[in-house]
Amino acid sequence: MSTLFFSEMKYDVAEPKSASADRFILSKGHACPILYAAWEEAGLLSHEQVLSLRKIDSDIEGHPTPRLNFIDVATGSLGQGLGVATGMAYVGKYIDKASYRVFCLLGDGESAEGSVWEAAAFASIYKLDNLVAIVDVNRLGQSQATSLGHDVETYKARFAAFGFNAIIVDGHNVEELLAAYETARNTKGKPTALIAKTLKGKGIEGIENEDNWHGKPVPAETINAIKARFHGSQKGKLVAQKPINDAPAIDLHVGSIKMPAPEYKKGDKVATRAAYGTALAKLGDVNPRVIGLDGDTKNSTFSEKLLKKHPDQFIECFIAEQNLVGVAVGAQCRDRTIPFTSTFAAFFTRATDQIRMAAVSFANLKCVGSHVGVSIGEDGPSQMALEDLAIFRTIPGATVFYPTDAVSAERATELAANTKGVVFIRTGRPALPVLYDNEEPFHIGQAKVVKQSAEDKIVLVGSGVTLYESLKAAEELEKEGW
Amino acid sequence: MSTLFFSEMKYDVAEPKSASADRFILSKGHACPILYAAWEEAGLLSHEQVLSLRKIDSDIEGHPTPRLNFIDVATGSLGQGLGVATGMAYVGKYIDKASYRVFCLLGDGESAEGSVWEAAAFASIYKLDNLVAIVDVNRLGQSQATSLGHDVETYKARFAAFGFNAIIVDGHNVEELLAAYETARNTKGKPTALIAKTLKGKGIEGIENEDNWHGKPVPAETINAIKARFHGSQKGKLVAQKPINDAPAIDLHVGSIKMPAPEYKKGDKVATRAAYGTALAKLGDVNPRVIGLDGDTKNSTFSEKLLKKHPDQFIECFIAEQNLVGVAVGAQCRDRTIPFTSTFAAFFTRATDQIRMAAVSFANLKCVGSHVGVSIGEDGPSQMALEDLAIFRTIPGATVFYPTDAVSAERATELAANTKGVVFIRTGRPALPVLYDNEEPFHIGQAKVVKQSAEDKIVLVGSGVTLYESLKAAEELEKEGW
Repeated sequence: MSTLFFSEMKYDVAEPKSASADRFILSKGHACPILYAAWEEAGLLSHEQVLSLRKIDSDIEGHPTPRLNFIDVATGSLGQGLGVATGMAYVGKYIDKASYRVFCLLGDGESAEGSVWEAAAFASIYKLDNLVAIVDVNRLGQSQATSLGHDVETYKARFAAFGFNAIIVDGHNVEELLAAYETARNTKGKPTALIAKTLKGKGIEGIENEDNWHGKPVPAETINAIKARFHGSQKGKLVAQKPINDAPAIDLHVGSIKMPAPEYKKGDKVATRAAYGTALAKLGDVNPRVIGLDGDTKNSTFSEKLLKKHPDQFIECFIAEQNLVGVAVGAQCRDRTIPFTSTFAAFFTRATDQIRMAAVSFANLKCVGSHVGVSIGEDGPSQMALEDLAIFRTIPGATVFYPTDAVSAERATELAANTKGVVFIRTGRPALPVLYDNEEPFHIGQAKVVKQSAEDKIVLVGSGVTLYESLKAAEELEKEGW
Repeated sequence: MSTLFFSEMKYDVAEPKSASADRFILSKGHACPILYAAWEEAGLLSHEQVLSLRKIDSDIEGHPTPRLNFIDVATGSLGQGLGVATGMAYVGKYIDKASYRVFCLLGDGESAEGSVWEAAAFASIYKLDNLVAIVDVNRLGQSQATSLGHDVETYKARFAAFGFNAIIVDGHNVEELLAAYETARNTKGKPTALIAKTLKGKGIEGIENEDNWHGKPVPAETINAIKARFHGSQKGKLVAQKPINDAPAIDLHVGSIKMPAPEYKKGDKVATRAAYGTALAKLGDVNPRVIGLDGDTKNSTFSEKLLKKHPDQFIECFIAEQNLVGVAVGAQCRDRTIPFTSTFAAFFTRATDQIRMAAVSFANLKCVGSHVGVSIGEDGPSQMALEDLAIFRTIPGATVFYPTDAVSAERATELAANTKGVVFIRTGRPALPVLYDNEEPFHIGQAKVVKQSAEDKIVLVGSGVTLYESLKAAEELEKEGW
């Protein structure tokens, strides 16, 4: 942390989340006291603030969240930081085309999470040489030693096989760390991973490299012994490098993004997933910061319509849905883009934890899931989204759309772009008739009455395919004199 | 498939899921027509059955499910097969101590899923030399080429770094495949991965190695050309090797597992998570096939109580929740064990897709999630389970328990062991008073009235920490004369 914050990273204490500053993600969020301490040393936090750790009226919580002005995303659900970091690095390299870099500190225990390897593969596919992962190999998990212990060679082999320039360092050796950061800075065409061998509680007698200290405070007498050896704060003496202000100034225009109206005829048969693709491409026309991301289903979700028109606004994330969401969360940080992610709605279940954490991070994330409900039929239950509405409705602050026809699907997409926060749009596979006028207005939280009379006795409620069935039922009921 | 089914694998067509037979998991479930064809050739399915593929009244669906008597688990949500296979292999090696082996066929596209690498790490940690993964590297995903294409060396390096004996083979060369299977059979102490370079549509002009054939039927004229080159079925001539019947006969006694009654005094302060651990250990005493699995949180979920008493009935899965559930689903196959998985309830969101698929697989899976609700406080929202009830309640056929005190938590655990299917138990962090008698009976779907009078005007409903708050509120209301 000291080499990163006071030698390698470029940032401005007065504006910790400026567009051009280097990014830092503490993927091992439980280690946040060291992050708070670094920002104190840098001059952002007061000592009193740091000492409010875990108090009920303090935002200095046990795991970091963006309630703090120097945090981009909440961490604490392990294995998620690197995915977010790759999204930031992708945007830095290919969309902002700026010089800022992205640093991510991971634990060794959390490297067992598959999401870490999804992110690692993504970083190498897109040659994210502006990304540095540091793995703190301290050998100890929460309840026992990790499976690999201090076997840094195996960590190195894994990161190397996943396309990283992997370097083993002594995590307590400042010179080695600085040399490795220099190598990372000069490595082109691939990301770098520092495999840092460390001892948990280094230098503290009775604690160093011992099990059973996870989440426990250090005894007072040990603290006093450490204080006696402390050389004093360097606050004000350590000055971080300033960022190079080469990231473009952006206004995403959230709330005022207008796209051309839908162009359908009532009765035209159009799948809502196809209408989503049409709308996404239109949004891409009017706003170059609207981007699409998909997990190798773009020909099913129709996000490929954006890819075909604006290849620079599309990120193929391959079959790795956790990372699909992780990259999107990273891409939206610091209001750099409005990311629309798409896959089969059933496969968003794979990223439920990432979506949950996106809400904790106040992320401006759009998820569009296709192939919903049992009506997709012969492909079988593995492909059917049945749990998606319940899951997204539990996400704090999320907006959930289930448009029935092509007009409402286009409008839902436009509303999603104009609504900050997590938005889910549920789209269907079959081509079904257009119901609404192209100029019909749609509002969040308002359903439509598509058929009514003064003598109605029964209310039928439907959306998507069930709305068409409700309309058929209404006709039947009418025939029967209801 | 031909080398596996008619040379390498040991099984009995008359009893495809016998305890001692080798297991086969088609992780790339969309390729199931070849699986149905193999079972036709083996003599289990009729030609008519196979031709009922994707028809509305047929179980020969577009992705395999255990509605078919030769399928252990549903596949079709990619990247899940290897985790299940590792669970089966673990049980085979360490619990059944039998000679059966486990084969898993993966796609190259799905190898981007992190769950594959969680499973790979697990397989090497536990030296699962009875496991063979075959990766079909055909270069083509659904919507475009995979990121690695035919770069078999990188696949090999990745599997090798994750502890596999990795062998590159020409997937169309029978001799090479048989030699590789022989090597796998003779490899001790580590799993084997065959990296099989293949051409999709091999030998079919205009289709071989071409994009855009995913999920599309081959044109009729091409079929006729293939038929002309076909040497005829070997049905009845190809005889699979019979299994060695060395897996123990087991009756899990589901429905009649009795454990000693709880031993608390009313008012004792005991966390429900601690009571879960106590009950799990008791179940482990009375039934050696009750096993516990955890993701490095066993000292928080108290599953360590089983580990301490019955180390042979506990599997540490490290910080990889997708694989935690995958291993459990594999472990329960063919009624070999009753697996209880535990982690923080918030982190089961990581495995939502695996849990969803467990239900499609009719799996007898128990999930126990701790640290629920906002009352866990200072650790922050990343650690709080808020979505868990909604998620598990959407799982078809799942049973959801939210016990309030230690007695009900123990009984929920006992009921879970006696209830087939997916069961979720929600446990809490704080130690709170015991409310019920040790002999109080509990039934699925029945709540308890803990306080009432003939003059009641208000109903308060609570569970877990909110029940204690409801009781306090009842006292207040009583004082106020309600």
